[in-house]
Amino acid sequence: MKTFQEMSRQELEEMHSKLTVQFEEIKAEGLKLDMSRGKPAPEQLDTAMPMLDILNAGSDMQTENGTDCRNYGIMDGIPEAKRLIAQMLETKPENVIVDGNASLSLMFDTVSHSMTHGVCGSTPWCKLDKVKFLCPAPGYDRHFKVTEYFGIEMITIPMTENGPDMDLVEKYVQEDASVKGIWCVPKYSNPQGYTYSDETVKRFAALEPAAEDFRIYWDNAYCIHDLYEDKSDKLLEILEECEKAGHPDLVFEFASTSKISFAGAGVSAVASSAKNREWFKQSMTVQTIGPDKINQLRHVRYYKDLAGLRAQMSKNSALIRPKFELVIDMLEKELSGLGIGKWTNPLGGYFISFDALEGCAKAIVAKCKEGGMVLTGAGATYPYGVDPKDSNIRIAPSYPSLTEMKEATKLFVLCVKLISIEKLLEK
Amino acid sequence: MKTFQEMSRQELEEMHSKLTVQFEEIKAEGLKLDMSRGKPAPEQLDTAMPMLDILNAGSDMQTENGTDCRNYGIMDGIPEAKRLIAQMLETKPENVIVDGNASLSLMFDTVSHSMTHGVCGSTPWCKLDKVKFLCPAPGYDRHFKVTEYFGIEMITIPMTENGPDMDLVEKYVQEDASVKGIWCVPKYSNPQGYTYSDETVKRFAALEPAAEDFRIYWDNAYCIHDLYEDKSDKLLEILEECEKAGHPDLVFEFASTSKISFAGAGVSAVASSAKNREWFKQSMTVQTIGPDKINQLRHVRYYKDLAGLRAQMSKNSALIRPKFELVIDMLEKELSGLGIGKWTNPLGGYFISFDALEGCAKAIVAKCKEGGMVLTGAGATYPYGVDPKDSNIRIAPSYPSLTEMKEATKLFVLCVKLISIEKLLEK
Repeated sequence: MKTFQEMSRQELEEMHSKLTVQFEEIKAEGLKLDMSRGKPAPEQLDTAMPMLDILNAGSDMQTENGTDCRNYGIMDGIPEAKRLIAQMLETKPENVIVDGNASLSLMFDTVSHSMTHGVCGSTPWCKLDKVKFLCPAPGYDRHFKVTEYFGIEMITIPMTENGPDMDLVEKYVQEDASVKGIWCVPKYSNPQGYTYSDETVKRFAALEPAAEDFRIYWDNAYCIHDLYEDKSDKLLEILEECEKAGHPDLVFEFASTSKISFAGAGVSAVASSAKNREWFKQSMTVQTIGPDKINQLRHVRYYKDLAGLRAQMSKNSALIRPKFELVIDMLEKELSGLGIGKWTNPLGGYFISFDALEGCAKAIVAKCKEGGMVLTGAGATYPYGVDPKDSNIRIAPSYPSLTEMKEATKLFVLCVKLISIEKLLEK
Repeated sequence: MKTFQEMSRQELEEMHSKLTVQFEEIKAEGLKLDMSRGKPAPEQLDTAMPMLDILNAGSDMQTENGTDCRNYGIMDGIPEAKRLIAQMLETKPENVIVDGNASLSLMFDTVSHSMTHGVCGSTPWCKLDKVKFLCPAPGYDRHFKVTEYFGIEMITIPMTENGPDMDLVEKYVQEDASVKGIWCVPKYSNPQGYTYSDETVKRFAALEPAAEDFRIYWDNAYCIHDLYEDKSDKLLEILEECEKAGHPDLVFEFASTSKISFAGAGVSAVASSAKNREWFKQSMTVQTIGPDKINQLRHVRYYKDLAGLRAQMSKNSALIRPKFELVIDMLEKELSGLGIGKWTNPLGGYFISFDALEGCAKAIVAKCKEGGMVLTGAGATYPYGVDPKDSNIRIAPSYPSLTEMKEATKLFVLCVKLISIEKLLEK
């Protein structure tokens, strides 16, 4: 098989004509496909519905320490919810603060408090001339939006299969005191599905930041989101590694059950050291009288423990796995060996990352839109929405049905080929 | 009947001895009473329990516009929840943003966003040398804590039965561009239970602020929290008044169902003009993917409309009213005509405000604590926790049982008498 680069102009032009006919046929079908966000599919949400039966008019609404979940009180989460989240994050319950429905809000608030009040007593960031965050990319667009919103300068750090380029991370963190944070999705990273290697985690824990208020924003969003029971990535537990390295305060670890129970109606949490938790509580004491404890209780009574959470994830992955496999199979079959794209094949998480020929991502996403499918905007996976190579595309296979997924991938492959040919013919 | 001031030293001393014996008897009982916070009583929360039956494993989870409440989406609240809250606030559904579990967080976030990003395009407050808020007092301690947390200078505005001293409010707001906000609890104010008169509301709506980014923080926490069906205060609807006065952007109105359904597990909202809502959404777009729509749906399916909310409030007030009446009766019976205290007798809300002789509040609260009862800290109802006259005490009758309430008020009255005598004997 020839790569596209090895083909003649004529061969490419002929192929383009044929593919254009196919594209126009698909376009005429008037598809409305959405692969833009990592949203659970309705059938997936159906599997969590029995949770809504768990609390009813006759339920005992007391926590295990006798607090009435229907009333004010307990700012940092009910004890049994701390224990559940701690099991999920492989840490101690006392490290955990359980909050409201969204870890994104927790992360936003953490940056916001750092802006107005500083971290653990250091200078508020809004008083500093320059604040910088490291952004391993491709990464999660909503992370980048938070730092952009606060006018924080974002520095792109290349991602590798083992995590961010740690030589660069160490250089920036240890030499530049204006670097105050780094966004990490350490397991099944968004969008590549890479999991940080043990060495990467240990190098994070060993960081000696130039800034005392530097923190790692460890968004462990996909901590138990494995696609397979028999093969899954393992992530070293960061809080313990930091403690061992003598840097207990280096990390804020975030998580939620949004992609376990209900998206936007789960519970979120932050896990960190005693000193950091005290800092969180300083602002929380003013910001809130407490989280929704009833929803915390509902989650704990339903899932009980890690085994319960994993049982839920088995149901979820049974529905997501075939979609991932379908996409990967079609990409393999249609694009393998053509030299016009590379893609990841993750064991968990919510995304597949596709790297097109340089300068093609925006055009492919636009072409897909023309054909009836919305993808995440090209560039969104990079700080400021600008992918310097215009190459990365995030594929979110979770939401569409298998049938839609097949249509969607067919269209995607077609658009990749068409745009790649156009790019090669330009030269 | 003589006032305490008219009594002789000897009479006062004799009375003090007698009352001390009574106090020691009560103290010996080892009471553990709590009248510190405006918390619903367990029986009150029981009346809302059927709400937990309303959504179950078989429920249709779609909003009326076809959004799945179990998934991401709809940042500013589901349409039916907007309508419900709009009925409660006597405004239009399109004015309403329905959020998470706590209006306090919404207010905190509003101040926080103003600090970091400014209001509707004006200079971020953190870039200004001085930002001031007007604080009608006595008022709600958690409001004052928010502004104190952000280093905002608080200016005390005396409260009257008709609301804040509007001459002073007008003077500050219209002459001082560093005044950026005012905290208001316009109906059944915390702690006095006063409702702003029509004239007060109209004068608020007519304000011509020196600062373009001045906003009224209108915390309508007790909008439908009447104690009686046949007599209740009426509050003019502020958003419409502001529109009529040509100042549509002057007000942020906050509310929640925390003291309707479940405290800390209700839904909160902010109502405001189109321009202000756009500003709210600018930060919300970054801060969150959306509120807990399942809990919003649960509330709407259960209460349906204003009539449903009022039916809930009837059940609540049937439980709270006797407690208010018991306190008022005992205060009347025991303290009336003695010249050592004044108290409010509100038709709604959660508090009774008591004004002791100047310089006595702290000592009374301390004495009550010695006797086995926790009250809200004296001074808490004033900015910086300092009541210049050391006179105001907030009584929160909702949480204790009627029996406890009787014990508590007996102890309270005793402590007021004892401390007042000690104060008078000092002279």
